[in-house]
Amino acid sequence: MKPATDTVAVMAPTASIAIIGNEILSGKFVDQNSPFLIGELRDLGVDLCRIVVLPDDTADIAITVSTMSAAFDYVFTSGGVGPTHDDLTMEGIARGFDVGLAPIPELTQLLTKHFGQEPSAAQLRLATAPQGATLVYGSDRRWPVTQFRNITILPGVPPLFRKMFLSIRETFRGQPKLSTRIYIRGDESEFADALAEVVRDHRDVDIGSYPRFEASVHHVIVCLESRDPNALESATAAVRSTLEDRLLSTSEIENLTES
Amino acid sequence: MKPATDTVAVMAPTASIAIIGNEILSGKFVDQNSPFLIGELRDLGVDLCRIVVLPDDTADIAITVSTMSAAFDYVFTSGGVGPTHDDLTMEGIARGFDVGLAPIPELTQLLTKHFGQEPSAAQLRLATAPQGATLVYGSDRRWPVTQFRNITILPGVPPLFRKMFLSIRETFRGQPKLSTRIYIRGDESEFADALAEVVRDHRDVDIGSYPRFEASVHHVIVCLESRDPNALESATAAVRSTLEDRLLSTSEIENLTES
Repeated sequence: MKPATDTVAVMAPTASIAIIGNEILSGKFVDQNSPFLIGELRDLGVDLCRIVVLPDDTADIAITVSTMSAAFDYVFTSGGVGPTHDDLTMEGIARGFDVGLAPIPELTQLLTKHFGQEPSAAQLRLATAPQGATLVYGSDRRWPVTQFRNITILPGVPPLFRKMFLSIRETFRGQPKLSTRIYIRGDESEFADALAEVVRDHRDVDIGSYPRFEASVHHVIVCLESRDPNALESATAAVRSTLEDRLLSTSEIENLTES
Repeated sequence: MKPATDTVAVMAPTASIAIIGNEILSGKFVDQNSPFLIGELRDLGVDLCRIVVLPDDTADIAITVSTMSAAFDYVFTSGGVGPTHDDLTMEGIARGFDVGLAPIPELTQLLTKHFGQEPSAAQLRLATAPQGATLVYGSDRRWPVTQFRNITILPGVPPLFRKMFLSIRETFRGQPKLSTRIYIRGDESEFADALAEVVRDHRDVDIGSYPRFEASVHHVIVCLESRDPNALESATAAVRSTLEDRLLSTSEIENLTES
């Protein structure tokens, strides 16, 4: 027998990001990689579920990244790959999965070509990865990205992080979400109950409520998001009709000055 | 018997940040609160050890925040406090510590004054906190910050987050670290071994190595950090003399164009 409805719930792939580096936590450098990746994953239709910023510590990397690997479809690590003493990501991942570390011959060859001679011990660390790691060549055919299971291991230096992610970006594509924003006049607490009713009736749509006190008109942005255009349209209409007398006009929205 | 040395290791207070909100993970709003708090904690001399960005999910908030509370001296939460259905931080903390939720009479009174009437059920959520929560009045004598054990619970809206943190900022003061930066010409792998030796000889100084490929001159920034000025001076001198022939000149440093 056919089910009563044809609706198919499309589960999007899930992802998490591990930003590895004392330099971010101590404020020496600003994390540019998670803001970049948040936008990319959103555009790709991948649900980002967690970001952790953690120190250069092998044991912490081991437990954090292996936990993420079990919980989410994709894990992206930023930082801790390189030739110096504070580059511990490969060690951490190897420990987290109880495997050894070894140079990948293909990477050693690429390094030999790059440096014009046999790599030194320090340079060889750039070719070293947890046993079982694979190399993925994307749009940049000269240099591959290293992956281990569902973990994509990226360098922390922002231009390199971006370049390497973008070279294999399309391998992560899911189904992007559709979203709407509704601008509501007043204080959240005045319409929280009415909004909660709409939320209860539209479980297939993510609805969030975000007050903006810093704008010229105190208002609340209600964001709706779904992969199902019909569900989104119906929930958007429900919010608009429930809060009809509070909707900001187009010209009021255009004139909002937000910080 | 007196120990052989008078050196006293000053342990700085440790901290972690939980950024609670689907809107950050999905890229609807940019996280402004952790960059702000990173800078504040650095200036205060508090060691930030971890940042987690997590969704509006009661169970996730419960486990994440209670784990942080056990591991670090201070926990700061951002977001998920308010009157709407997606404000789940108080519920999450209560569940994480297995305590009930109840309105704090003092906050209820403040809300009554603020709204000019008895708060509605939705408004009363603004006065509700895990049982055992305390109110701290800082420089803003009109509105307190809610704390539960070592957890400081702050709103996600950036201007409010900043205002409330700043009102009690001085209660977190530790001993700030001192730091130096040394600009080194060339590729990390060429001096990784030499640097590792300096690191081994100066365990009381945090030394990090950060390549900058995007600048006009490819170089590496070596950052040194310690609470002990003598240890810092000694380690800085050791790095400079070890890598003497690679130091960028003052004019080269001034002319670096970084992205």
